[in-house]
Formats: sequence, structure tokens, C-alpha cells
Amino acid sequence: MNNRLEKYAELIVKSGCNLQKDQILFISSPIGIVEFTRMVAKVAYEAGAKKVVTNFYDDQLSRYAYDYCDISVFENCEEWIALRQNSYAERNAAFLTLLSNDPDIMKGIDQKKVIASSVASHKACKTFYDALDFGKCVWCIAGVASEPWATKVFPELEPKEASEKLMNAILDVCRITNDPIAEWQKHKENFAQRKKWLNSQKFKELHYTASNGTNLIIGLCDMGLWEGGGQKAADGRYFFPNIPTEEIFTTPHRLKTQGIVYSALPLVHNGSRVEDFWIRFEDGRAIDFDAKSGKDVLEGIIKTDENSAYLGECALVPYSSPIRQSGFLFLETLYDENASCHLALGKGFPDCYENGYELNNEKLIEAGVNDSATHVDFMIGTQDLNIDGIKEDGSTLAIFKDGNWAF
Amino acid sequence: MNNRLEKYAELIVKSGCNLQKDQILFISSPIGIVEFTRMVAKVAYEAGAKKVVTNFYDDQLSRYAYDYCDISVFENCEEWIALRQNSYAERNAAFLTLLSNDPDIMKGIDQKKVIASSVASHKACKTFYDALDFGKCVWCIAGVASEPWATKVFPELEPKEASEKLMNAILDVCRITNDPIAEWQKHKENFAQRKKWLNSQKFKELHYTASNGTNLIIGLCDMGLWEGGGQKAADGRYFFPNIPTEEIFTTPHRLKTQGIVYSALPLVHNGSRVEDFWIRFEDGRAIDFDAKSGKDVLEGIIKTDENSAYLGECALVPYSSPIRQSGFLFLETLYDENASCHLALGKGFPDCYENGYELNNEKLIEAGVNDSATHVDFMIGTQDLNIDGIKEDGSTLAIFKDGNWAF
Repeated sequence: MNNRLEKYAELIVKSGCNLQKDQILFISSPIGIVEFTRMVAKVAYEAGAKKVVTNFYDDQLSRYAYDYCDISVFENCEEWIALRQNSYAERNAAFLTLLSNDPDIMKGIDQKKVIASSVASHKACKTFYDALDFGKCVWCIAGVASEPWATKVFPELEPKEASEKLMNAILDVCRITNDPIAEWQKHKENFAQRKKWLNSQKFKELHYTASNGTNLIIGLCDMGLWEGGGQKAADGRYFFPNIPTEEIFTTPHRLKTQGIVYSALPLVHNGSRVEDFWIRFEDGRAIDFDAKSGKDVLEGIIKTDENSAYLGECALVPYSSPIRQSGFLFLETLYDENASCHLALGKGFPDCYENGYELNNEKLIEAGVNDSATHVDFMIGTQDLNIDGIKEDGSTLAIFKDGNWAF
Repeated sequence: MNNRLEKYAELIVKSGCNLQKDQILFISSPIGIVEFTRMVAKVAYEAGAKKVVTNFYDDQLSRYAYDYCDISVFENCEEWIALRQNSYAERNAAFLTLLSNDPDIMKGIDQKKVIASSVASHKACKTFYDALDFGKCVWCIAGVASEPWATKVFPELEPKEASEKLMNAILDVCRITNDPIAEWQKHKENFAQRKKWLNSQKFKELHYTASNGTNLIIGLCDMGLWEGGGQKAADGRYFFPNIPTEEIFTTPHRLKTQGIVYSALPLVHNGSRVEDFWIRFEDGRAIDFDAKSGKDVLEGIIKTDENSAYLGECALVPYSSPIRQSGFLFLETLYDENASCHLALGKGFPDCYENGYELNNEKLIEAGVNDSATHVDFMIGTQDLNIDGIKEDGSTLAIFKDGNWAF
């Protein structure tokens, strides 16, 4: 196990972040996985990092804050936090986020506080968020098993056993073989072929249908691009923002979605869960929705700010993806989004628009690329999902048939 | 055990920090003791804290930084760190430091980096340090057992057992009985009586002698004060900066110490150890020194900055103190300094000078109160230590005889 963990740490630093000599690595890490965080730091130093800065946090303490603090505490982002994020972004740090959250720890918290915090942070840390969004800084998100998380995924197991099983599942779906760096190079090349085909077709719209009632037309941007695998930073450096990743995605036109879509998997958001939900769109806007449970959480997401009711992402993931095939619901979007075709409410991706890195937010919004303080994925890929691409001339080509790639 | 830990957390928040409603509590905590840190946070929120901010750190990661980073990294304090410390100080936060260090983890690190870091931090975070030194903000330091620490204190025990034994020893010496808050009130009153006597005598000098060769005259400040137990913040609020505390101390005149002093216990500093050492003073300045081991560490302390070769503290602790009587060397100054009479090189205490809070650093230096980026205690209290107080007219009174209070 330790050997695989070391290879995983190396993949994260060298492929995920593509860390360069003399670069600063900024790690956000839950306290419970410190041994892995140390492993990553050591790999980074050995790769020549100038320094490794670690921002440790504890979900239980965050939970206390949500329970006890007045909403005014969340409405202001501390200036030192903004300075920390913005100044490392200005110095081209690599930003690594390690995830290991107890999926239930935020159950029942006041969503208004979550939204206030997200809006305040987005405003105060604009330099930082823009650096990530516009490719100035590389970033990577990866997960590490912990007992509080693993016992929710495998409630039938003892904590230690559950944690080992989850960590092995993570290493499997992250393709941690003998030479994961080479493995991810191959993975990148596979993505390249599919992206090339999708980009060459210049689809105007996508038409989603499934037996659960989904019947949705998503309008694409004229100069939209399909991305996936990793991405190029503005300096040309290739990095993988998500480990694992199985999706090919684009940023849809924010005003051109019509119809209804049904969820295929639960949505876990800040520790709360939304189950069996649907959303109806009109001219891009989520105008109606319902959920069997967690409707208030969904409502909180949709109403975060003025643009959070619009889509920022549509992503294609075959039902045959190793994550879906593992049969596990990881209760963490990083994994679960790679199990299924999904959409995201909120912020769109400048790198999914031609020369998007060179446009400011106003220009991007005009072009149809959404902007918001939030970006929340939700899974819609059933085993019988069909997606047809519709071209300018009205002709159609199958992209997905029965949940998998049709080409 | 859990019940005693809860009482300990309550003592720290309510007596140590004397936390007020709507105050911010800033906790520095090693990651390994998160369960206790959460306990403290909960007590603080229930006492009405506006918010609890936690700065988690990991010694192993700090060690990597010392090993791998260039000294230039330590010569500059990050602006966001200065802003964090200074802005919470401006908002009258209470600062709690929880200690749980592996005493050996910094063994062999480059002392130049330690000094550079300390000097840079002291300069950048001046508002914060002044707020602590001049009683604007309350602060408290307390310890919590962890396996890496406990196994160094009790190397013959299994980690878990060692940690439990150390935690129990900590709770014992911190007087965690059924009602520790009342216990500390009594403790405070005992201190008050001794301080009253010492302050009424107006000693000009202290004369230390012991069979190990110690023969030292320490000159006191004309308007110096003996303090101990807790202290009053500028707003009149009483707090206990150290839990435990057994010492009565003053800030000696920085230029009036003459003679030689021998150590009684090892000095553990940033994870390094100095053993069997002596220091010779002339006109207050440490002009010569030697140690059986760790001489470079001692040299690093003495040469931190221009004033670190002068004394900032002399403290009286009877050989009968519960910490000395426990027979344990805790390998942590917070405890070990309360086992023994000690001196400190470096910064003096404005609150040990009449109206010291109202003077600036320049005035204090003039008055004999030392200023430095460092403050390092070292233990000199042997079982046969005698201390005589010498008055202006040359008459003497015994303060300590054979290691214990003579009055």
C-alpha cells in the first residue's frame, strides 16, 4: 500500500500539478490525512519546490463555526485569507487540494451561511480564482481516504478496514499501476482523439433523452471547445486539475438550455445530500425543480447568486467508466462526477472557449460562458441515456447511445 | 480521563484566556491533538466566542521546510501571516497556543534559519507581539500529550500508554481537580502573598550560590515588580498566560548581571537540547559559555540579535514545586521551567516594571528592561541553591535556602 501511495503522491505532484523547480506548492489539506500530505510535501521538495505551504483544516471545527457563528462572520472573508490566496496566485504557486471529507458532517447547516461564505470568498479572492480560471496558475484536486469518510461509503465495515478499502478503490480508479505517470500519458492521448472528433463536428446543440423523463436541449457556444483529461496553463504547461478524470466537457451557452433533466445519482454538496431530483430549464435558467430529499440544499445552490441558476458545464462520461464500474458511490463529486454524464450549475470554463484565457469575465458572459461564485456538478448519466449532436443544418449524429460513446 | 480533559479545556478558556462574550479566540495547534482542540473550541463557542480561528501546524512539515528551503525563505515573514496576527491583535482576540511537540524533531537543523525566521516574524508581526507584551491582548499557553512527545518522556512505554501517562501528569501538575477554576483562584491568592513580600523588600540585587559553582549577582530594576500566577491585561482582566505556573518572576536590569551560572536541567529549544552548560555574565552580557552538548544551539540563542545575550527574566520556583516533585523531565519549557528557578535570555517583561505598559520599547530599554526577538528560559534551580536579596543599604535577607523559599 505504501508503495502505491508514494506513486500516487508523485503522480499528483509531477503530472497533476506539473510542479516546476523553485515553484511554491500550496496544499489545502484536512488534518486527518497528514501522513499523505507529508508524503506529497517531500516529493515536492525533492522535485525542487521553493517551499510547501499547508493550509490544514478540520471539518468538525468548520461545523462548529456554522453552528455557533452569526451569519455576519461568513459575509466577510478575512483579509489575511484573501492576501494569502491572492499573493500565492500572483507568485504562480501551484494549488493542490486534498479531499477527505465526512460526507455527512455538514448535514442540516444553514445554507445561507454557506452561500454567504462562498460569495465573500469569491469576491475577496478574485485574483486567486481568476488565476485558476484563466490558466495563470496550475491546480489539482485529489482525494485521500479517512475513516470518517470511508465508514459512510462502506458502513458495513470496521473503520480501519473501510478506510483501506476506500484508499485502494481510489488508487485503482486513479490508475496507480507500476508507472502511473506513463499511464496518465496514455490516458491523455485517448482523450485527445475523442476531443478532436467532438471539436471537428461543431455541434450547435446536444439533445439528451432517457427513460427517466430526461428530455433536454443544451445549446453550445459558437466558439466553444471540448476539453478533457488535463489542460494547458497559459504558459503552455500541461496539468491535470482532477485526479481521477474520465470526462470530456464543454461550457454550454448559458442562455440556451431548454427542457427537463432528472438526476441519476445523489448530489453531495458541502456534506448535505440531494436525492432523486429534477430541474426544468427555460432559456438557460433553472426555473423549477424538486427533490425527494435535500430540496433546500438544491435551492441554496441555484440561488447562490444571480448566475448560479445557469449551466456552466456539460460533461460526457461513459457508463463504462472505471468509476461507475467499481460500483461504489464515493459520496464525493471528484469521483462520482467521473461515474456519469453530468451538468454543473454556476461558473463556466474560459478554457472551453476559443482564446477564452484572453477574455475578461464580461466578454465571456456575452459569449455565453457563465460566471458565478459557485460550480456544482450533478449526475444525469443513466444506463439508457442517449445524446444526439445537432448541427447548424439540423442534421444529427449520435454521441452517446445507451449510456456509452456512440463513436 | 475525558471528564478531566473537559475541565482542563474549560480552565484554559475561562481562567487561562478569561474569554469574553463576542471575543475571537485564535488557537495555534499541532494537528496531532485535534480532539482536544475541538473540545476547547466548543467550550469557547459555548462561552460566547464570536469565532474560533485555528492555525494548525505539523512539526514534520516544518522540519522538511528547515531541511529543504533556502534561508531566504526564512528571512521574510509572509505578509498574510503578519496581517493575520496583527489584525486579530487589533481586534483584541485571545491567543491560545497548544503545545505538543516531539522534543527531538528539530535536532540538527540549521540554527541560522531558526533565528532568521524568529527575527523576521518579530519584525513583521510587531503589532501582534506588542499586543501580547503590553497587555492589550490576553494569551495562554498549555500543553497536550501526543505519542511523539510522550514516547520521548517515557521511552520505556508503548506509545499509547506513554501518551496517557503524560496526559495524566499534565492534568496533575495543572491542578485539574474537581473544580480547577476554584483551585486556580486559591493558587492566585498564594502567589499574591509572596509577591507582596518580595515587592515590599525593594531588593537591589539577588545573589545566587550553589555547590555546582554558580556564583551570580543579578541587578534588579529600580522600579521592577515581582509578578507570578496570572497577570492583568491593560483592560484590567486577569488571565493566566501559562498553565501550569509555579514561578514568581521579575525582569532584571539588563546591564547589571555579573558572575557565572550553571544549568540544573537540560535546555530543550526548538527540538534541540543543550546539556550541562554554564554562562558567564559581565555587565549583563553573556560573554562566555560552554556546554557538554548542544553548544551551537546555545550560541544560536545568545546570538539571535543584539540584545539576546542579556537577561530578560529571573524566576523563583521552589524545589518542592509539584512539577519538580513529579520527578519527570517533560522536555518542554512550559513544564520544566516550573520545576526550577530559572533565568531567560532575551526579551524582558514590561508588566514587571511599574507602569511598563505605558512605556515604549526605547523607554523600557533605558530603564533596563531588555528587548529581543527571543526569550529562552534555562533552569538553574538545584536542591542546594541559595538566593540572598541585597538591599540598597547592603543588608541581606535570605529568599531561597537549600532550593526552597526561605520566608
